[in-house]
Amino acid sequence: MPRPVFIVSDHTGLTAENIARALLTHFPGQPLRYLRRPFTSDAQAAQAVVSEVEALAASGERPLIFTTTTQPDVLEALQTAPAQVFDLLTENLRLLEGEFAEPPQLGAGGHHDMQDSEAYLSRMEALDFALATDDGIGDKQYGLSDVILVGVSRAGKTPTSLFLALQHGIRASNYPLAEDDFEREGLPAPLEQYRSKLFGLTIDPRRLHAIRTQRKPGSKYASIEQCEYEVRRASALFARLGLPVKDTTSASVEEIAAGVLALLRQSGRLEG
Amino acid sequence: MPRPVFIVSDHTGLTAENIARALLTHFPGQPLRYLRRPFTSDAQAAQAVVSEVEALAASGERPLIFTTTTQPDVLEALQTAPAQVFDLLTENLRLLEGEFAEPPQLGAGGHHDMQDSEAYLSRMEALDFALATDDGIGDKQYGLSDVILVGVSRAGKTPTSLFLALQHGIRASNYPLAEDDFEREGLPAPLEQYRSKLFGLTIDPRRLHAIRTQRKPGSKYASIEQCEYEVRRASALFARLGLPVKDTTSASVEEIAAGVLALLRQSGRLEG
Repeated sequence: MPRPVFIVSDHTGLTAENIARALLTHFPGQPLRYLRRPFTSDAQAAQAVVSEVEALAASGERPLIFTTTTQPDVLEALQTAPAQVFDLLTENLRLLEGEFAEPPQLGAGGHHDMQDSEAYLSRMEALDFALATDDGIGDKQYGLSDVILVGVSRAGKTPTSLFLALQHGIRASNYPLAEDDFEREGLPAPLEQYRSKLFGLTIDPRRLHAIRTQRKPGSKYASIEQCEYEVRRASALFARLGLPVKDTTSASVEEIAAGVLALLRQSGRLEG
Repeated sequence: MPRPVFIVSDHTGLTAENIARALLTHFPGQPLRYLRRPFTSDAQAAQAVVSEVEALAASGERPLIFTTTTQPDVLEALQTAPAQVFDLLTENLRLLEGEFAEPPQLGAGGHHDMQDSEAYLSRMEALDFALATDDGIGDKQYGLSDVILVGVSRAGKTPTSLFLALQHGIRASNYPLAEDDFEREGLPAPLEQYRSKLFGLTIDPRRLHAIRTQRKPGSKYASIEQCEYEVRRASALFARLGLPVKDTTSASVEEIAAGVLALLRQSGRLEG
């Protein structure tokens, strides 16, 4: 029976789950099942979780509880459960209290997503931008982009631009490389002036072949010859232009996005 | 001068930054600046961060360091920096070691995004699905959806479906409510059979008016009368169909998505 892992938060629980997973990934042999209890924001809701834990413990299971709550009554209730509680914030809050020489405002916690609503709006605007400019794009929009992802079809441009928008409020647009660009051996004129915003994505041709085959099996588009040709020409173009390039073959969107963010920071176009 | 907050990770640093923000949100009066140092995965990279911290400390600043690294040499280096270090995982790993009665596999850490590559592929597939079905959708695709978000234009359907896909691998499609549906006082026939997958999004008409005005200022579409009319008719439809409904007026996509996930779990269509 996989061990129950309770994720308890007074908000969505995303942060609590991410850190629980970051921890539990170090015990790859342990079978686990996640039980998410978001919006557990008062003692009564916490007591309901405790009852669930008690029922599982009574039948011989050994639940774990991960929580990012900072509400004393919720924490107090959870501590009565027959389970190891991983209180992810309290000890760190105490350290911060010492650093800042002021007590934490406990009511303010958890809602860090919407709280900074200017940042939130910029994420939603960036998402609209990414959706509006995905693949088809006008010259004007290149000027509004924070970054322009360049690569062959299915190299990872769209997921990365959506992730950059949703998570980081970065306006990312795409430029899909195609035959015209390879024949020209360069970028179209409107893009040339934004060379400092360009970021190249490359991919192993065999992986590209597999991805394209899922979409259009047996097509020239998906053939290994076509994939090898496009990737080779794209790489040559990136080298000639001196673009920063990320290989997406075994990279997640999180990793590709981290590469883009690092570039923006290095070039001073993004703080931090 | 805003206080420097270093985010140090051997991977993308998203988890470390989220937990740092969850903590620091409790000290809303403190001016901060974030300095992200992802992919700090060996002692040499850690030493470079320490040098940066030293330089800032020498000019009178008091940096903070948040890290999710579990590599002993990286941690050891960071501990020599003239800054408070928030070591977010080590103590919890020790607790887990006791619970599981086995040592953590330290090399395995951090890369929890791509590690479970089946989960990653399902996220990318769900994203393709959300993009392919956004707004325009065929009957066949409703059957493949995990959830179908229903609401008037600009009520939050698209960002929510993209977020559900990118973060959770949930296949969410959209059904935009329009005049036809209000006149019919019901859903189109193909949607009726998927009633158990429907999830209604509502919004305050004044907020909707503001959002639509940004898009098409002065249009009938954006007028407060039209917004009030659509929201009223949509709410009546949700009530008649008995749909679960989330008000998106002051909810983030994370919060709306959490509501959808809770519904899927309650109805047994999603584990946990």
